[in-house]
Amino acid sequence: MAKSRYEYVKHFESDPPLLPNTFLMVRIDGRAFTKFTAAHKFQKPNDARALRLMNDAGTACMNEFQDMVLAFGQSDEYSFVFKKTCNLWARRPSKILSAVVSYFSTVYAMQWSKYMVDEETGKPQEILYPPQFDGRIVCYPSLKNIRDYMSWRQADCHINNLFNTCFWTLVNLGKMTNKDAEKELSGTVSKEKNELLFSRFNINYNNENPMFRKGSVLFRQIVQPKEKPKQPEQIDSEKQPQKISPPRQRYAVVTTHIDVIGDEFWNNPECPVQDSDGAGKR
Amino acid sequence: MAKSRYEYVKHFESDPPLLPNTFLMVRIDGRAFTKFTAAHKFQKPNDARALRLMNDAGTACMNEFQDMVLAFGQSDEYSFVFKKTCNLWARRPSKILSAVVSYFSTVYAMQWSKYMVDEETGKPQEILYPPQFDGRIVCYPSLKNIRDYMSWRQADCHINNLFNTCFWTLVNLGKMTNKDAEKELSGTVSKEKNELLFSRFNINYNNENPMFRKGSVLFRQIVQPKEKPKQPEQIDSEKQPQKISPPRQRYAVVTTHIDVIGDEFWNNPECPVQDSDGAGKR
Amino acid sequence: MAKSRYEYVKHFESDPPLLPNTFLMVRIDGRAFTKFTAAHKFQKPNDARALRLMNDAGTACMNEFQDMVLAFGQSDEYSFVFKKTCNLWARRPSKILSAVVSYFSTVYAMQWSKYMVDEETGKPQEILYPPQFDGRIVCYPSLKNIRDYMSWRQADCHINNLFNTCFWTLVNLGKMTNKDAEKELSGTVSKEKNELLFSRFNINYNNENPMFRKGSVLFRQIVQPKEKPKQPEQIDSEKQPQKISPPRQRYAVVTTHIDVIGDEFWNNPECPVQDSDGAGKR
Amino acid sequence: MAKSRYEYVKHFESDPPLLPNTFLMVRIDGRAFTKFTAAHKFQKPNDARALRLMNDAGTACMNEFQDMVLAFGQSDEYSFVFKKTCNLWARRPSKILSAVVSYFSTVYAMQWSKYMVDEETGKPQEILYPPQFDGRIVCYPSLKNIRDYMSWRQADCHINNLFNTCFWTLVNLGKMTNKDAEKELSGTVSKEKNELLFSRFNINYNNENPMFRKGSVLFRQIVQPKEKPKQPEQIDSEKQPQKISPPRQRYAVVTTHIDVIGDEFWNNPECPVQDSDGAGKR
Repeated sequence: MAKSRYEYVKHFESDPPLLPNTFLMVRIDGRAFTKFTAAHKFQKPNDARALRLMNDAGTACMNEFQDMVLAFGQSDEYSFVFKKTCNLWARRPSKILSAVVSYFSTVYAMQWSKYMVDEETGKPQEILYPPQFDGRIVCYPSLKNIRDYMSWRQADCHINNLFNTCFWTLVNLGKMTNKDAEKELSGTVSKEKNELLFSRFNINYNNENPMFRKGSVLFRQIVQPKEKPKQPEQIDSEKQPQKISPPRQRYAVVTTHIDVIGDEFWNNPECPVQDSDGAGKR
Repeated sequence: MAKSRYEYVKHFESDPPLLPNTFLMVRIDGRAFTKFTAAHKFQKPNDARALRLMNDAGTACMNEFQDMVLAFGQSDEYSFVFKKTCNLWARRPSKILSAVVSYFSTVYAMQWSKYMVDEETGKPQEILYPPQFDGRIVCYPSLKNIRDYMSWRQADCHINNLFNTCFWTLVNLGKMTNKDAEKELSGTVSKEKNELLFSRFNINYNNENPMFRKGSVLFRQIVQPKEKPKQPEQIDSEKQPQKISPPRQRYAVVTTHIDVIGDEFWNNPECPVQDSDGAGKR
Repeated sequence: MAKSRYEYVKHFESDPPLLPNTFLMVRIDGRAFTKFTAAHKFQKPNDARALRLMNDAGTACMNEFQDMVLAFGQSDEYSFVFKKTCNLWARRPSKILSAVVSYFSTVYAMQWSKYMVDEETGKPQEILYPPQFDGRIVCYPSLKNIRDYMSWRQADCHINNLFNTCFWTLVNLGKMTNKDAEKELSGTVSKEKNELLFSRFNINYNNENPMFRKGSVLFRQIVQPKEKPKQPEQIDSEKQPQKISPPRQRYAVVTTHIDVIGDEFWNNPECPVQDSDGAGKR
Repeated sequence: MAKSRYEYVKHFESDPPLLPNTFLMVRIDGRAFTKFTAAHKFQKPNDARALRLMNDAGTACMNEFQDMVLAFGQSDEYSFVFKKTCNLWARRPSKILSAVVSYFSTVYAMQWSKYMVDEETGKPQEILYPPQFDGRIVCYPSLKNIRDYMSWRQADCHINNLFNTCFWTLVNLGKMTNKDAEKELSGTVSKEKNELLFSRFNINYNNENPMFRKGSVLFRQIVQPKEKPKQPEQIDSEKQPQKISPPRQRYAVVTTHIDVIGDEFWNNPECPVQDSDGAGKR
């Protein structure tokens, strides 16, 4: 059973590196989630528990893949931005993509029961079958491109959520049929939708949960060290004084619902996405 | 918040179709499984429970993706072969790869407690953290290529398992240190390893669990229909006689441990991998 | 001037190998040849001199690139088929494509004056500006695919040439305007076009120049050695008789206008395109 | 002869667009030019006629492909930089690469006799066989990357030319054998090579032809319009005064031998390579 005569098949593999000196972006999408959310009776228009579960999976990925600097989640999708200088697995796309999607998926499946708790009974809701996600990996050459990418997803979140909020308010509070609600909203612009919510249901859209309106924006932040720097245990005056090392900066992934379309986030000198042109040298 | 001005970023995506009229092969590998198997105290050299869990995930994929015609699993890896005429998602590699890896991963995570039962206590063993897999997708143009691919993986299984069986027998039964066992086996050929097992431990390697020696080979087989074909409920002699449709053939994925290196599997006219040259027409 | 600090830019290059065990096909097309042929007053519907120039360039490529086994030329395009086992430049597509296109282009430019001779004056026609070609490189996994590719191009040649022959006959002999000729032919099938030529102009399309009707098919053929095998100069009966080596087979590229749509070409055991599954081993 | 049944083979073609918002760089290299230059007795270490021929072909390409903003030539290679916003043929790499290489090649072949003139006889030297070039196409995301690319090629030119100048001076003027000259130069740094030329042959390297030392840098420059703007032919005071349009700026490709490693070229506000982030919108 000479293995060597079959090994030529390895040469059919091809996973050429992604272009250096570009931001890498992995976006994960739920597959057949219309069916999945129906089967699991997700709350409409938003199920805060399910979004928190997505955020947990997103945070786990940020902690696992240190080259991720920013993430954005909404609905059943999550986008992860890797820094330009990322050299994980020599930037092989299949390797990176499959590893991220796999990890996101298993965290989602395993953390389900922590988040998907029935609010009345307090018991975890059963997961009926394994969820599926798919993904893509894209290069963005400039900071402007990656900023526009984030704006695209947040604008998408806003537009969908405003529509869905109106739709389900018309259905749930307005007692309309789905069809009538659809008709009512057809052709309306944002301003009219805001007005509809306010005038007919006394709902100020801007007071809605920011996680629904803005999606979730994840990045690392410096965390204050909880303990003081260790004092050297004994100081022997005859020896060289030991160095008291400054406390190492520790980072934690934070989940926010801030705006990433305006300038504020990007002009902040501590913005987690930086364009310093290391030029992709290795 | 005009979404349209950001939509240009979609054009940076690229997922060109894989070459038509080739077999597609997705191979999934456990990531950092040395650590994962140690943390979960997998039995050495083989943990039959863990292999059955892998086979369950493999079978779930075969049931989910109808274009898969053959799969092979061993250790922490699984290979799936799609038929040449597969046109799933227009053969976009990222889409196919990520979906398969995601589904395999969530099935593995969710079925864990069904298989990973402590044999003494009968209780499921806790899964300590989310497992990760990665994957690759490869085109193979000819039947010979895909056969050689399968032979490569089964030969790999054989070689590793024979070595591991000797190694752990020397350690567990022979009371050797890992280092001494390694040394003892260094440079030995298959025949000598077989001889070692037999002469010193009275173990006939060929009687070992075929799942360990040959890995697992999955494919679809015709299942006998359980019910008779339905009789048309009433036959009206004046009308055209209704056709009595023959029972629809039903297929089920079977898990075997057969040889795929020799000719028998491939020369069988019902071999699940067929090369009929539809030429990849759409 | 340390060159080394800039060399990182080499890592941005990417030219991943084409899938092994597939036929490679390079097709070259004239760029802006409508303008080029008008500027150089090519004869309509076919300029035999220009086609012979194309065939010369095609033949030069076959002689330069030994892995080419078949070529097909018509109008301002040429297709070259490389054998499955081709490993030229490790199958790097940009390298192969650019080298073939470059060579074809320079041969075309340099052989121009040999072919583009004014029939009345016998003088070479001046080439007014450098011609341009572009190209593509495609993998075809099976013999059926590459045969269908050749059939596609020859059918294209037939359809275009039959139309063009009718059109220019109506214009040149029938004294129609271009517009009227176009209108006359609109919606006609092949049979009607044949009939039109015969009934109105007494032209039997099948007697037209096969180079126009079928295009040009190039491949290598064994050429009879011109000299007898060398006799060893002196035979010394005491020594071992020297081996009289058989004459080495010599091949030459032939230009034919045979049919490649029917079975005859492909079923010939000496067909230059063979599918023997070496399986792409290296 | 139904063409349609063969047309499926078109789907095997794949030429996915290059990443938007990146500089595209096409580099052309002479194939087997060691043999070609020997056969045509190119002067050593530099043949100014042959370099001018290369520059002519480079200039022709700049004039043909308007999206090229910068080019660099040395020895038998030429690099062309396309602006970031280039959308030629939807950025399909095979199309762009093959068209540029083809055009460069035919210009080279056709302009040969204009440049390759025997200096003694004044007669054009015969071109013995068609020259060949190959090429590659690479994306560079940032201005720094493309600047470093240009620096890499110019540093390469400098290093090779300094070595070759020393080598051929030792051989031609110093009457050394090739082998001894090689030995003499082995391990020397730039400063020592400069010193060798000056002290032994009274050659100041910095006075050598800048085309040899720096290579050739091509870009577009505004050319003063030769004619005054047209006066409107008659001015009728009763009508609205016709606008006298300002003379349209005209550009011409200039061939220079300037430094592109230092800051001056790149910091010039009229530098032909600009990074203004249009972000690759379409």
